[in-house]
Amino acid sequence: MTETQDHIAEIDNSWISLATTFVSEPEIFDEVLTATKSTDLAHDFSLVEVQAIGKLFHMVSIEQAARLLGELPDGQAVEIIENIDSWRSAEILNQLESPLRVRLISALTEELSKEITSNMPAEEAEEIAEKVSWPDFSAGALMSSSHLKMKAKDTVSNTIAYLEKEQESAADSDVQYLYTTSDSGALVGVVRIRDLLFSSKNTLLETIMIANTISVSAEDPLEELSELFDRYSYLGVPVTAKDGELLGVVKRQTVSEALASREANTFLKASGIVGGDELRSMPLALRSRRRLSWLSINIVLNAIAACVIASFEDTLSTVIALAVFLPVISDMSGCSGSQALAVSLRELTMGIIRPGEVLRVCFSELKMGIINGAVLGSLIALVTWIWKGNAYLGLVVGGALAVNTVVAVLIGGSLPLILKKLNKDPALASGPILTTVTDTVGFFLVLSLASFFIEYLR
Amino acid sequence: MTETQDHIAEIDNSWISLATTFVSEPEIFDEVLTATKSTDLAHDFSLVEVQAIGKLFHMVSIEQAARLLGELPDGQAVEIIENIDSWRSAEILNQLESPLRVRLISALTEELSKEITSNMPAEEAEEIAEKVSWPDFSAGALMSSSHLKMKAKDTVSNTIAYLEKEQESAADSDVQYLYTTSDSGALVGVVRIRDLLFSSKNTLLETIMIANTISVSAEDPLEELSELFDRYSYLGVPVTAKDGELLGVVKRQTVSEALASREANTFLKASGIVGGDELRSMPLALRSRRRLSWLSINIVLNAIAACVIASFEDTLSTVIALAVFLPVISDMSGCSGSQALAVSLRELTMGIIRPGEVLRVCFSELKMGIINGAVLGSLIALVTWIWKGNAYLGLVVGGALAVNTVVAVLIGGSLPLILKKLNKDPALASGPILTTVTDTVGFFLVLSLASFFIEYLR
Repeated sequence: MTETQDHIAEIDNSWISLATTFVSEPEIFDEVLTATKSTDLAHDFSLVEVQAIGKLFHMVSIEQAARLLGELPDGQAVEIIENIDSWRSAEILNQLESPLRVRLISALTEELSKEITSNMPAEEAEEIAEKVSWPDFSAGALMSSSHLKMKAKDTVSNTIAYLEKEQESAADSDVQYLYTTSDSGALVGVVRIRDLLFSSKNTLLETIMIANTISVSAEDPLEELSELFDRYSYLGVPVTAKDGELLGVVKRQTVSEALASREANTFLKASGIVGGDELRSMPLALRSRRRLSWLSINIVLNAIAACVIASFEDTLSTVIALAVFLPVISDMSGCSGSQALAVSLRELTMGIIRPGEVLRVCFSELKMGIINGAVLGSLIALVTWIWKGNAYLGLVVGGALAVNTVVAVLIGGSLPLILKKLNKDPALASGPILTTVTDTVGFFLVLSLASFFIEYLR
Repeated sequence: MTETQDHIAEIDNSWISLATTFVSEPEIFDEVLTATKSTDLAHDFSLVEVQAIGKLFHMVSIEQAARLLGELPDGQAVEIIENIDSWRSAEILNQLESPLRVRLISALTEELSKEITSNMPAEEAEEIAEKVSWPDFSAGALMSSSHLKMKAKDTVSNTIAYLEKEQESAADSDVQYLYTTSDSGALVGVVRIRDLLFSSKNTLLETIMIANTISVSAEDPLEELSELFDRYSYLGVPVTAKDGELLGVVKRQTVSEALASREANTFLKASGIVGGDELRSMPLALRSRRRLSWLSINIVLNAIAACVIASFEDTLSTVIALAVFLPVISDMSGCSGSQALAVSLRELTMGIIRPGEVLRVCFSELKMGIINGAVLGSLIALVTWIWKGNAYLGLVVGGALAVNTVVAVLIGGSLPLILKKLNKDPALASGPILTTVTDTVGFFLVLSLASFFIEYLR
């Protein structure tokens, strides 16, 4: 309750009394919300039982609830929606801007999202259903539908009347453009609002609009949008359906936010956090189930590598020192592989490599693997020789690490490209596959080499 | 040469002939550059020897070189600068917008950045030196100095004359505001450019400016800037020194880009890629040295864990099956720990936890660790029992994994907070420390438990 509390020192710090104040004095609520940083809000909310927050969202006005929800990180907002009655959630979500609304609804369980949309006006529900169906991070999923549009055949005076009527709802969004459509609703041009000021009342929009305006398709992925905003200084770009119908507008700001959020997602997924952001305020059972879903795949994959060790128990019992090096080889190869993996994921995002260029990446990583493998292998061979006084043991362990380093960087480098080509999520699947392969190959290398040289290792 | 090539099908595909065309026909260059996606450009450049690209940057005009550089990812741009003569780099960098220029110069070796700035006009060099000194991702590092400013005592007609003169240089940046300063250069207000149109020529700016405008300090970190742009719909915010002097303007777009770039950095560092983006086009020696610098720390840390195993060789030789489980325990604990680590890094970024709240995180992870530890431990105990027909062995392995899962999530969850509090980079250091602790404790747990129950394990 740190910052929020400071701003409202006059009331005591129990959450419900705070909530009650909000309800009875909406001006204080707005003032507090404006003065509170959204990270402080997120922090304070994370300290309170989510059920209590759910109650608060029933007590404040719909507008206030929507504003509050918009300030919070998505994960937290979803959690709160799950603790509000669905008819209320429907009202609150109706107040939100489209990309946020679609994002939140997509993150809900199918059951809950159906329940909520069934409480919305049919038209809204249909619109949402359509938008939720766009692929993640596509123009369709990111577009806002609160844009201004008129028919190209409309006059300037009609348009100004329309703008005056829309004034209120458009006040927040720094609107500078208005889109013109044909009678069938297809996008035909864009009008700078300031140009309306210099035109006579009877001018048709089509005479002052910029025709052949740049637009994107609803299926276009985030990379395309990012490219476009890099190249042009537009604040928003219209989104059209295949038949040219104007569906919405993607804003520059939305695209930038989506890029940051996708980077964060990559990190989370590569670390084994599945199903979106995990917040510690979420129910323990849900968090535990999600983490276990990834861990249980890993434990099965681990068993594969363990079987290799088990099949060499004779060699191990003859040269027990080998047991010391198995985890070292597993860990070091994993590290080398994860470096190559991170570089590939990053180069894929930047467009520097393409999913088809597996050979190019392999060639580059091969050279790297040979150098790093030689360095790491020699290092561990030397340590082993000095420690155990047996040069052959050093050779076996060092040789296995050297070769396995090459294997690790080749797999780590190429796996993200292959998965991407297969339309699988490289961030999520690469890590576990990489570990399994490097462990299995690494254990096999060191133990089969040891079996071969067993005479010299006793 | 994919896309670029398509756009200039009339010339052959050798890089130098392309470059020569650029030099002799600057209009084609501009056309090609506009038609080429920046990711395609980055991809094509990554296929060419960087020395050849260096030559190209000597052949095209300074403006063209600057434009080209601005389209590329930072890592690639830095690499190219390293292959251009420093006097030429100085000229090209002089053409770039301030945040990009500062970012690129910061990423160079100190030697090279000194050499380049020594080729710049003294005033420019000084300005850059000052900006490079701001902490990464602070308002000072992210601000642009191409803003418009006038004295508050200036008249509207003087201002319009100034704007006309600046027209050319400001054409690109969608400028809508002009900042007003006192005679000493301190920020006093902001003027909407469109308001100039409605004021009489002799009006002083101070009568139409918005006084007490919101500004940030040059030291303010990225989080503060992100907060500010979340709260207000400004496109830019003025940056001031401690004494109120107007230093520059941070743009909304720059802040969004910085957020995405910081997320990407977190992932790279957590994966062992140090020293910024690694591109496969960079010199092999540099890439290998950087990767080895992280790997060599890991190999030393690995040796600590290996020593634990070595000290239990007697137990191991009695129950050789234990060797099968050591890597499994190491890997599974590592996975559990990295999940907790990712959640903490993410919650830190979102502001949901603060560096001081170690206990709160530990309490939350303790519950998670007990549940997941019990599940994973039971699973592996059962498998071991069935496989080896020895319930005690199952108990030893399962018990060790269960306890070590708790240790792993506690360390993984709290380490980023502790490192942040100590002003260390949590993304970079957390992983290796986590692995070492979980391996050491894990090996000790399973082997000391086995020694204790050795009678039942034979």
